[in-house]
Amino acid sequence: MNETGMSEVETVEVDLADRRYVIRVGAGLIAAADRELADLIDGRHVVIIADEGLAGPHLGALEGALRHSAARRVDTLTTPAGEAGKTFARYQDVSERALALGIDRRTIIVAFGGGVVGDLAGFVAASLLRGLDFIQIPTTLLAQVDSSVGGKTGINTTHGKNLIGAFHQPRRVLIDTNVLDTLPRRELLSGYAEVAKYGAIGDRDFFEWLEQHGQAVIDGDPAARRRAIVASCRAKAEVVAGDERESAGGRRALLNFGHTFAHALEAMAGYDGSLLHGEAVAVGMILAARLSVRTGACTGQDAERLSRHLSAVGLRTELDAVDPAGGWTADDLLAHMTKDKKARDGRIVFVLLDALGSARVRDDIEPGLARTLLTRPKAA
Amino acid sequence: MNETGMSEVETVEVDLADRRYVIRVGAGLIAAADRELADLIDGRHVVIIADEGLAGPHLGALEGALRHSAARRVDTLTTPAGEAGKTFARYQDVSERALALGIDRRTIIVAFGGGVVGDLAGFVAASLLRGLDFIQIPTTLLAQVDSSVGGKTGINTTHGKNLIGAFHQPRRVLIDTNVLDTLPRRELLSGYAEVAKYGAIGDRDFFEWLEQHGQAVIDGDPAARRRAIVASCRAKAEVVAGDERESAGGRRALLNFGHTFAHALEAMAGYDGSLLHGEAVAVGMILAARLSVRTGACTGQDAERLSRHLSAVGLRTELDAVDPAGGWTADDLLAHMTKDKKARDGRIVFVLLDALGSARVRDDIEPGLARTLLTRPKAA
Repeated sequence: MNETGMSEVETVEVDLADRRYVIRVGAGLIAAADRELADLIDGRHVVIIADEGLAGPHLGALEGALRHSAARRVDTLTTPAGEAGKTFARYQDVSERALALGIDRRTIIVAFGGGVVGDLAGFVAASLLRGLDFIQIPTTLLAQVDSSVGGKTGINTTHGKNLIGAFHQPRRVLIDTNVLDTLPRRELLSGYAEVAKYGAIGDRDFFEWLEQHGQAVIDGDPAARRRAIVASCRAKAEVVAGDERESAGGRRALLNFGHTFAHALEAMAGYDGSLLHGEAVAVGMILAARLSVRTGACTGQDAERLSRHLSAVGLRTELDAVDPAGGWTADDLLAHMTKDKKARDGRIVFVLLDALGSARVRDDIEPGLARTLLTRPKAA
Repeated sequence: MNETGMSEVETVEVDLADRRYVIRVGAGLIAAADRELADLIDGRHVVIIADEGLAGPHLGALEGALRHSAARRVDTLTTPAGEAGKTFARYQDVSERALALGIDRRTIIVAFGGGVVGDLAGFVAASLLRGLDFIQIPTTLLAQVDSSVGGKTGINTTHGKNLIGAFHQPRRVLIDTNVLDTLPRRELLSGYAEVAKYGAIGDRDFFEWLEQHGQAVIDGDPAARRRAIVASCRAKAEVVAGDERESAGGRRALLNFGHTFAHALEAMAGYDGSLLHGEAVAVGMILAARLSVRTGACTGQDAERLSRHLSAVGLRTELDAVDPAGGWTADDLLAHMTKDKKARDGRIVFVLLDALGSARVRDDIEPGLARTLLTRPKAA
């Protein structure tokens, strides 16, 4: 036990010149938010923008801690989770409600929730008074290892998701592993797919560790969870530090492993909760690995190993499992992939594996190769 | 005559490290936009966001020039000017219409209009796909010397103007002095108030030059206009380069000379066109100069000289002239000033003159001193 009363807290540094910040990972960080954030919130007005689904003990613990801090004032605004929480209307609503609280340029926004609330609150923070400081306290595994790191914020449009937003780095990220104890198992697995991604694209040792300990991460072993989250955040932080604004041809694109397929699957599923983002990423990574095998870049063994691991922890791994009716055609999926915002002049951009632990971006893949992977035998 | 077929074009550099850009000032730059912007638009999709009031020869000239450029494609979206042009609804509308054009990350936005369109288009550019390049082509004197330099973009809210937005620097600014020939005289004078401001706060020689040549600027002498605009942009660029994001206590705050009073006057007038921004700034600068005299910082002679010059070019200089009914009380105006977004913990922030050509920020002025300046004898 250390002075904060918590057994183990690890720190990941995100090295972005004048926007450098740290991610703190450990059990009980929400209840310790007063001490964890003391240097940032001293004398300032704090506005928590919280997922309305958290309006129970977690939010109470955060508010309680911050009310014991040196913050000048603490207010809370709640907003719905789910993709409907990222509309222009929500953006306007939360911005106007924050302004009604009498914010000033030193007000600090705390984003408290999953990825939707983090993305929305981050964009609100980026644009209110042309930019307020903000703190991320992500409450889902997916948000902890993915959207809370890297500074991407945004909202959805009628033309697609996340097409409006800002790069706005948080001043700090607090990841409390305790919140995962009450997270539905399906959401936990959805986040786990992104954890496995970091191993697949850049760290074979970590992937092998996950093969041994992934089940412990999912079952709730605190040390295993902390290690998986720290390794994931460190991997993402490294990529982001080298390519903050996702330049063309930059390393940040590697984070899209599995996502070219996943975005098409999600679009077909319709964002109705029937296919979570991480669930789509799991299938997408397996398709990308198989495509890597077809191009000769990767061995069939490595692709099979990725599929086996994701299946072992309980994720769906086949197209037939996420579209049991078989209604999504290869043409439908390829059409979505061609329209993806990362497509370059109509060419689909894929992240392919050379091996488990090593990936590269390719925009020269013959679409026919992907088509065969997406084509299923017609039911009799 | 030089190779672009224009007699004189001057260049102002805005020195912002990796966001460095140039402002080009001269007659005929719109018609020469293909050559002026050749290095930026080569092969790219260009989306002009234009003030719908310009849908005549000016817009035709710009579109014509860009269609002769190496742009891959040129589209135009029009949007209304006036403060009603800066609502959330307009922001959403213009963003969605731009997305409908099939923009990508290399698309470049051209803001073509006065300050309202520039602020709106700038924020759209800042947030579309998390940030597109943009070019400012301001078409009012006010926008040319003020809002098009410095990277402030934004929209209005129910709680006040410009409370949502971004710092987003243009890649280039083209200031075509020819557009001023068709600008209504009242708008020209409104912009001129900001020109005079640069002299008052930082350049006594320029102020003295304006005393000699201000009328020529207003009457349309091309060389005088160019010189006034270049001096103004250079002054603003210098301040912005030293303090890009308007830090507390930074030099950028000096640009608010006259604006503490002006914002209160504009709020009382109700943004209905009866009091233009620069008209309010003219009266506000004179009030601020008189306040400077009351604090002992500035001589009465210098304050009088500022007032005399603004009056000589045709601007209203007295509270009674902008509120002939005498309905705006000192209490009303002070209440607005205390709520101003630049107020610090309820203390009004003023920019005061030490002399013509030298200013400083003060937040320790007894409100009673300002009150006496704003109190008018009751009509019998």
